[in-house]
Amino acid sequence: MAIHQCRTIHISILIGILLISGCQNKQHISSNKPFGLVIHGGAGTILKKNMSEELESEYIEKLKESLHAGYTVLENQGSSLDAIQAAITILEDSPLFNAGKGAVFTNAGTNELDAAIMDGKTLNAGAVAGVKRIKNPLYLARLVMEKSPHVLLTGEGAEAFAEENGIELISPDYFFTEQRWEQLQQLKEQQDKSVSDLMQQNINTESANHLFGTVGCVALDQEGNLAAGTSTGGLTNKRFGRVGDVPIIGAGTYANNQTCAVSATGEGEYFIRSVIAYDISALMDYRKMSLQNAADRVIMEKLTDLGGTGGIIAIDNNGHIAISFNTSGMYRGYIDMDGEMSIKIYKY
Amino acid sequence: MAIHQCRTIHISILIGILLISGCQNKQHISSNKPFGLVIHGGAGTILKKNMSEELESEYIEKLKESLHAGYTVLENQGSSLDAIQAAITILEDSPLFNAGKGAVFTNAGTNELDAAIMDGKTLNAGAVAGVKRIKNPLYLARLVMEKSPHVLLTGEGAEAFAEENGIELISPDYFFTEQRWEQLQQLKEQQDKSVSDLMQQNINTESANHLFGTVGCVALDQEGNLAAGTSTGGLTNKRFGRVGDVPIIGAGTYANNQTCAVSATGEGEYFIRSVIAYDISALMDYRKMSLQNAADRVIMEKLTDLGGTGGIIAIDNNGHIAISFNTSGMYRGYIDMDGEMSIKIYKY
Repeated sequence: MAIHQCRTIHISILIGILLISGCQNKQHISSNKPFGLVIHGGAGTILKKNMSEELESEYIEKLKESLHAGYTVLENQGSSLDAIQAAITILEDSPLFNAGKGAVFTNAGTNELDAAIMDGKTLNAGAVAGVKRIKNPLYLARLVMEKSPHVLLTGEGAEAFAEENGIELISPDYFFTEQRWEQLQQLKEQQDKSVSDLMQQNINTESANHLFGTVGCVALDQEGNLAAGTSTGGLTNKRFGRVGDVPIIGAGTYANNQTCAVSATGEGEYFIRSVIAYDISALMDYRKMSLQNAADRVIMEKLTDLGGTGGIIAIDNNGHIAISFNTSGMYRGYIDMDGEMSIKIYKY
Repeated sequence: MAIHQCRTIHISILIGILLISGCQNKQHISSNKPFGLVIHGGAGTILKKNMSEELESEYIEKLKESLHAGYTVLENQGSSLDAIQAAITILEDSPLFNAGKGAVFTNAGTNELDAAIMDGKTLNAGAVAGVKRIKNPLYLARLVMEKSPHVLLTGEGAEAFAEENGIELISPDYFFTEQRWEQLQQLKEQQDKSVSDLMQQNINTESANHLFGTVGCVALDQEGNLAAGTSTGGLTNKRFGRVGDVPIIGAGTYANNQTCAVSATGEGEYFIRSVIAYDISALMDYRKMSLQNAADRVIMEKLTDLGGTGGIIAIDNNGHIAISFNTSGMYRGYIDMDGEMSIKIYKY
């Protein structure tokens, strides 16, 4: 049975913090050019009882900083692509989220990052999977989109492309964080299980430990162009070169000016099998559903019925925002077409 | 402007060969349990004037062998998954197609293979990308689907998973064929171009030389279960760990018992950006289109308008077959629910 946990976006914010600083310039409201953006920092079992006030504040401040960075681009008539890059770079550079600096460790003790970006105007897209020496994978995904005829580059090949295009390769040590290393050690202590038990337990533990820290952003700019981007470190203790939904166009990331832009977070395998991001667009296009109804149909019914957990953020070509997830929490925020900012963490 | 090149499947076969041997047992016709399968061996610029009679015969014989292998499984009440595996293994083991034995070479002189499989009953899926020592990548994709909670495994990680699951890793030398090596050398001679020119030319040359030899199969079994599978060696002279549409669920491969099973071949980047395989399913589901109309809308209109070339094979849950492509040829064949076999190469 699907549980509706986030059917509508309430202007009231449930963690009790309404942040509208920096959004006082309402010029855009009378410009008849709606614009706005939504970000997420991952969905999962995120409970207030397990969160210190200090850590909660850190998350809120970082989400706020990210929203401001993206919104400033849009406000100054920048592109939705530039806005999502600005917003996601800040989340990638923070150790709080499972992307960039805060990426989780693989079974081999490495960090392997995935990212994707899509331009709703042209349907161009770029993605990278399994990169180990790229500080900001979303930017590399953008270069793949803009500087190559390809969509998806992987591993050392993607890093060679990065070097040829002027991106400095960093030491893998950059991604070391004590917290992520300890998470890996905890999982490894249970390695006397069979491989398939381990892989299953890996996913379950991720869920239980609310480690779905994938980050993403969707934006509508004043030109009416939509864009979506997503960046992740994948699963703690992952093996076998596993790639999730993030770099899969249509699964974790999708944008189309005719409909909407979507970025997902959750159990990637379910998002791939359900073609989550594109399905929301298809329901809008073929069934004429509203963005929120399409998002809820896909997350609260189809994904939930299949047994998957996670959520999405989305914005349509009129500036309407939708957030839908079936977990107990999701780091998320937006600045809507009225210039109002909302940041939330828990379900309610 | 979209050009309709294959709107319907004519029972008459255009290369003048009707092969119904092995399909004389018509028991299934009265069983009210329609079943059938479709295969492809790639789409591209395939012109009769460039094809020797001998080579044409080799292609036809191999396609026939593949169809028989898959059909025998279905006839004996085997599963659609077993049928597509039987059919694709034969194409992978042939040097004629750009998959398995006949895989093209990368810029580094290696062979990096991709494959995917999807089960329409459960929406389970498995895929591998960039494997170098796997004789039959489609079989490995099936093991990923059945023996791991993951969907997509890549590179050496996927090979480690293969070994742990009893698949023998072969020497990369297995994939050496003189023809593919010469194709690589021809492309390399033009390497004084810039990287992006080279990458673009790479795609164009593939098209011009009709090297889209990706193979695929879709099937409906007597239990009413659909399945789809695709296997490829990617692009000649590819660099940067490029991955195309084949292992991307929803792009090159998709199956859903509620609608259809689809396998694609063509310029992979366009197929990813257009979420081709899932889009056909979505048009059937949300717009109640017939399989052929949905396939033509996606290939002849949407893909063509975006500038992409290639095609798809598909079968729906009633056993109807559709093939749609916007190139001058496509290696293809089917045995339909009446037990009739058709094999074609050229557009007409």
